[in-house]
Amino acid sequence: MSAGKQLKLGFILHGVGRTWGDWRHPDAQPDASTNFAFYKRQAQVAEKGKFDFLFVADSVYITEKSSPHYLNRFEPLTILSALAGATSHIGLVGTLTVSYSEPYNVARQFASLDHISGGRAGWNVVTSWLEGSAANYSKAQHLAHDQRYRLAAEYLDVVQGLWDSWEDDALVHDKESGVFFDPTKLNTLDHKGEFFQVKGPLNIARSPQGQPVIFQAGASEDGKNFAAKHADAIFVGQDDLAEAQAYYADVKARAAGFGRDPEKVFILPGVAPVVGATEAEAEAKYQELANLVSIENALSMLGRPFNDHDFSQYDLDAPFPDVTAVGLNSNQSSVLKIVAAAKADNLTLRQVAQRFATPRGNFVGTPEQIADKFQQWLDAKAADGFVFFEALPKQLDVFVETVVPLLQARGLLRRKYEGETFRDNLGLEVPVNRFTAAKSAKEVA
Amino acid sequence: MSAGKQLKLGFILHGVGRTWGDWRHPDAQPDASTNFAFYKRQAQVAEKGKFDFLFVADSVYITEKSSPHYLNRFEPLTILSALAGATSHIGLVGTLTVSYSEPYNVARQFASLDHISGGRAGWNVVTSWLEGSAANYSKAQHLAHDQRYRLAAEYLDVVQGLWDSWEDDALVHDKESGVFFDPTKLNTLDHKGEFFQVKGPLNIARSPQGQPVIFQAGASEDGKNFAAKHADAIFVGQDDLAEAQAYYADVKARAAGFGRDPEKVFILPGVAPVVGATEAEAEAKYQELANLVSIENALSMLGRPFNDHDFSQYDLDAPFPDVTAVGLNSNQSSVLKIVAAAKADNLTLRQVAQRFATPRGNFVGTPEQIADKFQQWLDAKAADGFVFFEALPKQLDVFVETVVPLLQARGLLRRKYEGETFRDNLGLEVPVNRFTAAKSAKEVA
Ligand SMILES: Cc1cc2nc3c(=O)[nH]c(=O)nc-3n(C[C@H](O)[C@H](O)[C@H](O)COP(=O)(O)O)c2cc1C
Ligand SMILES: Cc1cc2nc3c(=O)[nH]c(=O)nc-3n(C[C@H](O)[C@H](O)[C@H](O)COP(=O)(O)O)c2cc1C
Repeated sequence: MSAGKQLKLGFILHGVGRTWGDWRHPDAQPDASTNFAFYKRQAQVAEKGKFDFLFVADSVYITEKSSPHYLNRFEPLTILSALAGATSHIGLVGTLTVSYSEPYNVARQFASLDHISGGRAGWNVVTSWLEGSAANYSKAQHLAHDQRYRLAAEYLDVVQGLWDSWEDDALVHDKESGVFFDPTKLNTLDHKGEFFQVKGPLNIARSPQGQPVIFQAGASEDGKNFAAKHADAIFVGQDDLAEAQAYYADVKARAAGFGRDPEKVFILPGVAPVVGATEAEAEAKYQELANLVSIENALSMLGRPFNDHDFSQYDLDAPFPDVTAVGLNSNQSSVLKIVAAAKADNLTLRQVAQRFATPRGNFVGTPEQIADKFQQWLDAKAADGFVFFEALPKQLDVFVETVVPLLQARGLLRRKYEGETFRDNLGLEVPVNRFTAAKSAKEVA
Repeated sequence: MSAGKQLKLGFILHGVGRTWGDWRHPDAQPDASTNFAFYKRQAQVAEKGKFDFLFVADSVYITEKSSPHYLNRFEPLTILSALAGATSHIGLVGTLTVSYSEPYNVARQFASLDHISGGRAGWNVVTSWLEGSAANYSKAQHLAHDQRYRLAAEYLDVVQGLWDSWEDDALVHDKESGVFFDPTKLNTLDHKGEFFQVKGPLNIARSPQGQPVIFQAGASEDGKNFAAKHADAIFVGQDDLAEAQAYYADVKARAAGFGRDPEKVFILPGVAPVVGATEAEAEAKYQELANLVSIENALSMLGRPFNDHDFSQYDLDAPFPDVTAVGLNSNQSSVLKIVAAAKADNLTLRQVAQRFATPRGNFVGTPEQIADKFQQWLDAKAADGFVFFEALPKQLDVFVETVVPLLQARGLLRRKYEGETFRDNLGLEVPVNRFTAAKSAKEVA
């Protein structure tokens, strides 16, 4: 039993879908990725469905082999800011890479979004796994995997420190005395670390949430430790119940090991529900989608996590080639997973590419079946909730109309938002300002 | 006579005002700088007044001596994106510094804003004049003045190249054939320069304006050349008619010298109108404002362009001290101007500080007087329009209610927006994509 526990639900705004097929669907809007009206409508539907948050993913490198939702997309902070004005309660989470940005700028952007939205910002901290990214940033090469995560930890600490530059009551605004702010409550960070030297203070007041909510999606050892130590919510790729349970137990234990309350670290698998009135209708919808992808596109998509490896050079119907090495400094966890699955099921290259190109997922069925499965994963400690890709056009609408009422009836999803900020709705407290805390500690001592 | 020429008008959204006094005004909202409702309302008033654009200035370094509108402010791209949804025709111009950002990120952000807003983005390219900024970006020191402008030229070229990554008809979106895009129309920039190496392509389609509009505000020799060569519109600090005419003639001649049509380079002095029903009322409003600033605050504000020089060490009533040297690598043009004015009028430190702390400006008067002066500056080739700081709370409202109708009656300002995009309204064409142009040139040859 879920014992009164509710699901946390996110919706991924990605314009055209993740596969080479779904933009070809009769109901698809191929220009969706840079269509503000499309984003705005989806954001409002998700808010109507009482989702916890919207999520905009990101990447900073494309080639002509990239898939449609990578090729042409909004920059996350700009589109989330625009959506802040079109929504009122839903969280606004965006990816921003620490490998190719400056902590001072990123701290400002998220603080600014948090002010604009009345406290609804969240940051998905990624290190970027596409090695080619370096070439867009005047860098000779992408940092090595472990170094990237070391840098990420330092980077996040700097950003969180900058967010605390202004103590909560620093802006006095007393017209009578002429005191605009209290300079003893404006703090200089003076960070000097391995990767960054950042003086501060930040030129924006502490935001409504105190600190925007932190998301992460590490799947490797380094990634899991980073997430368990620093993240409020963690995206995972698991789509299999047993695997998800193992990951869940692992990361929650790591979080406890870092002295954190594991209940306050939400684990959210990414799912792509295909909901139909009957099971057969749902299966038919999935099959319609899979049939829209050509084998050329499937191969090129498969190449992405392998550092854009050219798979067209191999025999399509021979066993999957031995290519682990070319992907290891790139998206390590995806690469290992694909290779392992190919071995386990003795797959040909064609089969691997098709499965990869149109992931079927574990969530194809009727509204009741989907609601059951969500509840099952929650009860089985495989997930605290889910983040939702739209596999097919209109699936968000169908989900909100048919699955959401079931979840609400079962007490698994709110009927109205609990509070004003994203933290309120997640049940996460506003962290005490680090400078205020240090001063109180000093006073006590 | 202005011969049918219309003024270009911009409004600067800055939350609390530029001085240490105006946040204390009875009508002022001291939290305005991070108040989205405040920004949204002003944006809508300016749009009602048929202004060409909104402008959000920026800086990336504060100390406890910074003035209120620097201390706490929105990050420009986030707030402009939020305002895109709250407006429909007005241009959205933001400052972003080339000294502490990455061209790939900046190109994306402005392209994204241009898509979100349906073609209303503009970028004010600055090099940052506050030397302390380096300490927020892990840098030992701020680049020298001439180097900053060399970097800016290369940076802008990279950004504009990235904006052309996708040719106009590159996204084919043909569901039938399965062709999402034409790879021959996705171009790799492969830039290798003195400061940057950027491969491209950009991961967002060419935006509605083709290229967002470029603003600049260089006042030094390097700055003026940069502006004349690259900018569609130029902000200037001149507030004196003769000086403004000289600057205007100078920059227009430079633009012609670079092979550009000087009519397509708009020169826009920054003005802070104080409009009253009578001349006396306007003067009284200005005086009310000036009286709100303390001498301590005035001194600290004066210190800013001099690299935060501590002016409190000098005798207030002695002649202005010789401090040119401390400011020369910072905001060169401001420093030279302040020092020259102090010499010319034989001012004491106190007098310089007061004038600097509450600039009175040249635009204090009745609606008719303001309209006359705008027309005079246009006819006298001192300005193509103005960018408007709000000196006092509610001045934007007063201006829109009283001055705008006069300007419209005289044919100096539109009654409705000419087109959909910012370029349409400015009368600027969409530039031909550089890659498309290069291919046509090849075909012809
Ligand atoms: C739901 C979900 C969303 C993700 N979003 C992004 C993203 O927006 N940008 C990105 O670079 N990686 C994203 N990732 C991938 C992770 O950040 C990470 O690169 C990947 O899981 C590999 O982790 P590892 O480097 O620890 O092996 C996402 C992963 C999941 C499961
Ligand atoms: C109306 C106006 C707006 C400006 N906005 C900014 C700004 O947002 N950020 C900034 O760093 N400088 C801004 N400036 C200053 C200029 O970018 C530039 O630093 C200054 O004019 C000194 O030029 P110089 O370096 O060529 O001497 C502005 C100037 C004017 C006149």
